[in-house]
Amino acid sequence: MAKKSIDKLMVFALGGVGEIGKNMYVVQYANDIVVVDAGLKFPEEDMLGVDIVIPDISYLIENRDKVRGILLTHGHEDHIGGLSYVLRQLNVPVYGTKLTLGLVEGKLKEAGLLGETKRILINSESEVQLGVIKATFFRTNHSIPDSVGMAFETPEGVVVHTGDFKFDQTPVNDQYADIHRMAELGKKGVLLLLSDSTNAERPGYTGSEKIVGAELVEVFRKAKQRVVVATFASNVHRIQQVIDAAEITRRKVTVVGRSMVNVVGIASELGYLRVPDGILIEPEEINKMAADRVVILSTGSQGEPMSALTRMARNTHRKVDILPGDTVVISATPIPGNEKYVGRIVDELFKLGANVIYGPGSVSGVHVSGHGSQEELKLMLNLMRPRFFMPIHGEYRMLRQHGKLAESVGIEPQDIFITDNGDIVEIQNGVARKGGKVQAGNILIDGLGIGDVGNIVLRDRKLLSQDGILIVVVTLGKQERSILSGPDIISRGFVYVRESEGLLDESSRIVTSTLNRLMSENVNEWASLKTHVKEALGRYLYEQTRRRPMILPIIMEV
Amino acid sequence: MAKKSIDKLMVFALGGVGEIGKNMYVVQYANDIVVVDAGLKFPEEDMLGVDIVIPDISYLIENRDKVRGILLTHGHEDHIGGLSYVLRQLNVPVYGTKLTLGLVEGKLKEAGLLGETKRILINSESEVQLGVIKATFFRTNHSIPDSVGMAFETPEGVVVHTGDFKFDQTPVNDQYADIHRMAELGKKGVLLLLSDSTNAERPGYTGSEKIVGAELVEVFRKAKQRVVVATFASNVHRIQQVIDAAEITRRKVTVVGRSMVNVVGIASELGYLRVPDGILIEPEEINKMAADRVVILSTGSQGEPMSALTRMARNTHRKVDILPGDTVVISATPIPGNEKYVGRIVDELFKLGANVIYGPGSVSGVHVSGHGSQEELKLMLNLMRPRFFMPIHGEYRMLRQHGKLAESVGIEPQDIFITDNGDIVEIQNGVARKGGKVQAGNILIDGLGIGDVGNIVLRDRKLLSQDGILIVVVTLGKQERSILSGPDIISRGFVYVRESEGLLDESSRIVTSTLNRLMSENVNEWASLKTHVKEALGRYLYEQTRRRPMILPIIMEV
Repeated sequence: MAKKSIDKLMVFALGGVGEIGKNMYVVQYANDIVVVDAGLKFPEEDMLGVDIVIPDISYLIENRDKVRGILLTHGHEDHIGGLSYVLRQLNVPVYGTKLTLGLVEGKLKEAGLLGETKRILINSESEVQLGVIKATFFRTNHSIPDSVGMAFETPEGVVVHTGDFKFDQTPVNDQYADIHRMAELGKKGVLLLLSDSTNAERPGYTGSEKIVGAELVEVFRKAKQRVVVATFASNVHRIQQVIDAAEITRRKVTVVGRSMVNVVGIASELGYLRVPDGILIEPEEINKMAADRVVILSTGSQGEPMSALTRMARNTHRKVDILPGDTVVISATPIPGNEKYVGRIVDELFKLGANVIYGPGSVSGVHVSGHGSQEELKLMLNLMRPRFFMPIHGEYRMLRQHGKLAESVGIEPQDIFITDNGDIVEIQNGVARKGGKVQAGNILIDGLGIGDVGNIVLRDRKLLSQDGILIVVVTLGKQERSILSGPDIISRGFVYVRESEGLLDESSRIVTSTLNRLMSENVNEWASLKTHVKEALGRYLYEQTRRRPMILPIIMEV
Repeated sequence: MAKKSIDKLMVFALGGVGEIGKNMYVVQYANDIVVVDAGLKFPEEDMLGVDIVIPDISYLIENRDKVRGILLTHGHEDHIGGLSYVLRQLNVPVYGTKLTLGLVEGKLKEAGLLGETKRILINSESEVQLGVIKATFFRTNHSIPDSVGMAFETPEGVVVHTGDFKFDQTPVNDQYADIHRMAELGKKGVLLLLSDSTNAERPGYTGSEKIVGAELVEVFRKAKQRVVVATFASNVHRIQQVIDAAEITRRKVTVVGRSMVNVVGIASELGYLRVPDGILIEPEEINKMAADRVVILSTGSQGEPMSALTRMARNTHRKVDILPGDTVVISATPIPGNEKYVGRIVDELFKLGANVIYGPGSVSGVHVSGHGSQEELKLMLNLMRPRFFMPIHGEYRMLRQHGKLAESVGIEPQDIFITDNGDIVEIQNGVARKGGKVQAGNILIDGLGIGDVGNIVLRDRKLLSQDGILIVVVTLGKQERSILSGPDIISRGFVYVRESEGLLDESSRIVTSTLNRLMSENVNEWASLKTHVKEALGRYLYEQTRRRPMILPIIMEV
């Protein structure tokens, strides 16, 4: 940093802070912008009717001529699920490893964007020049193969983004992390480290994926009938271990659930899944086989209502029945918010007579996390020895815990930047500070509409969901100044109409008398008539029911 | 069992199986019915707009002349919260210990039932004759004082109901469990044991409440400013330990949150809370005191939106601000489903600069469960040595796990009865079997209506909450056969109207042309007109938006 620079380095999140999923980080130096990931998240419970949530990319659109590309760390939905929506507004090159691009291509095809999107394959040896920024990559361990961290060489110094990671010393398929490359980066000097905070609240080390494999062999061996294993479709390592365990215990595997079939296809085609000849069978074939020769690999580990496992549990799966004595392994931990759904599926399976193996990995042995725990996060910090630190990926409290871990390995509190989405960390001439804020937030997608469901629509949906709606329609005569037709009262979601005739009749009387009184007093403005009807009716209904339905008076005039 | 009996013992749940809360168990011998507990549960996420859920007591109402009383095990909402609703339909005596009745009386007063309800105080020495059934009681450890288990002597044999329990060898306030009485019951012979399954999935022992007290003293001592402790208002032991820790560390305590103020009042009045003179101060006084002399005892440990802690975290509490450097202790574990709410509050508190102590008790040290873990459940089974076993209180999977624990201590699988609400366990002449089923289920309470919100109303609320509603009103002339007014289109919760004029204009055109076409074809029945309008409009809107709002065509005729 001998000569003073007039340009500066800016790093910020457009998604990834304070909410699960929807990851997107931005590294900018002067006129060059590099985007890391383009994830989605699933709607919170108050985002009624919303399908998915993506990051607000207004900043990128305003600076579209500067955006050099989107670099993907790995192929999970919360890192690639928003890509089609982003590309529709911003056609820039996409960089990813083989499996990641394989998964992306399916999405782009669905969105009709495959032809027009430039896709560039990278691996851990690649160097990519993006304006003045040079990106290199290092392999990490995570619950999907081919995940990478990234180092961005900028005129101001090196920024490292870990992606999602853990340190697995005995990885499946010998996919070792590039620990030497990480050490080398640290030795050469890292200006700013962005590191995954997902498990920053969890003490100790995360177990190796191999532990699960050994446990699966045990379970398959002991089971006297069929075994169903439900896990994330994207967890190719886990799928590999299910296949391996089946091979060891001489069982055949059938794959059910759309996304599971899809991933098994892509991953084996691209060489990420070793599938012994003849081990995969069609679901139709399982009924012809001895029950103790069958494994069913399934989606639904989160209790998703439409998933294969849920349908099996409810006895509505077309091809697979659960029989008393079958074993079901839930090889996953519920994502926060899904605990109840998973619990219900476990209940249903028990009621069918299945032996269900579930619960935290530490108890059940059939799951480990894909994210590093506190000791691993400290290892990453010590490998990188960054000048400045910015915890990423996680709720605010996790970023805070990660910040404390950084302090514990000797990083000064003032060099740790805990930011919200949009908050800029600015570095110029070796000095880092919180800069301004760019626009960032949630864009809600409901059906085809991008961002057209906002606060008013959500507020109305919320109101409607609580006490329903009562619609009052009346036709007034222009000349006659009297009610020509109605009031008709229609309710939905308010009371059970067949048992509430008295209530609705009285409501009708109240509307009639209110309108007649107002018209006799020469009050004729519709707005005023409606307000009075709403008030009178709202008061009556609340007295009678302690509910406050939305009341919608509609006046027609002929 | 020398002479054959023509009568039989029947035991079943009306609530308490397969859902959290809403506990109600029934023991019947011939013409005598005893009811244990009358709890409520809070609505599931698909019970839109519902306030609380109580058990269906149709069976009790049909057999009202046989019901000898409702016996309460302890004063938690999921055991007493449905009492007023039940008593309104079934005026029977209520039996409970001092604190339990103290908490019940507040509820009865609110419901205007205090005068007409016979309340009978019991303690662990009481014997109550209820027809041919004699009830006795034994003290248990739980997260509220004065909790008891019950033994029912019937002509067929003894039925024991544990209530909620743990074994705390170092209880607060020396409230030791009646372990000798339990041993005695077991020695004399228990025919059927009903035992709490809440923690049947948890290995080992649950920690003693005293552990939390020691940790609180540590936290209070280290904190350089104010300490806020949020816990369940009903956890009088915990409240006692907060007061004790404050006394030890020379802090004053102020109590915030309506239910916390209420319970502290009742519990200290009844002698369940030892409050040293002068230690309680008003919230208004805290600002005059040194920050390191203050403890704030608060509601909101579940992240409840209106609670005192939530208001503090959002800076909207009228009397208490959280300042940077304050310590907040969340002395509770989130009830399943509440994890996200609690997480958000923790995030908010961190953002205000507070030091937040939270997380599972095993990590944070500031909480232990009130329910026994697997080793304690086995201890209870071994103390009671029942002939038959019926796990109670918990989700189906927990009952199953409890059943496995019973097998592990030597109870035969065929002597273990895992039942759903309403399933009768019948015992006659020493032989137990699953009998028939009585009506049981959820009664939803929304406002003043008991049970009038059913499937149709909930389905409509669900539909409305997803994509909103579109109302089409049109006035037709009786003679003219033409549209006299409208179509007017009003939408709520569907699209943002200001940005969707084109869509709504086109909708209006579609309605007009559909109606004109039909009328020119002499289709005049309203039902048919409405169906066609709905279909045409639904198709158009789905094409344009991929949403399916509820469409409500209203035809007025003049």
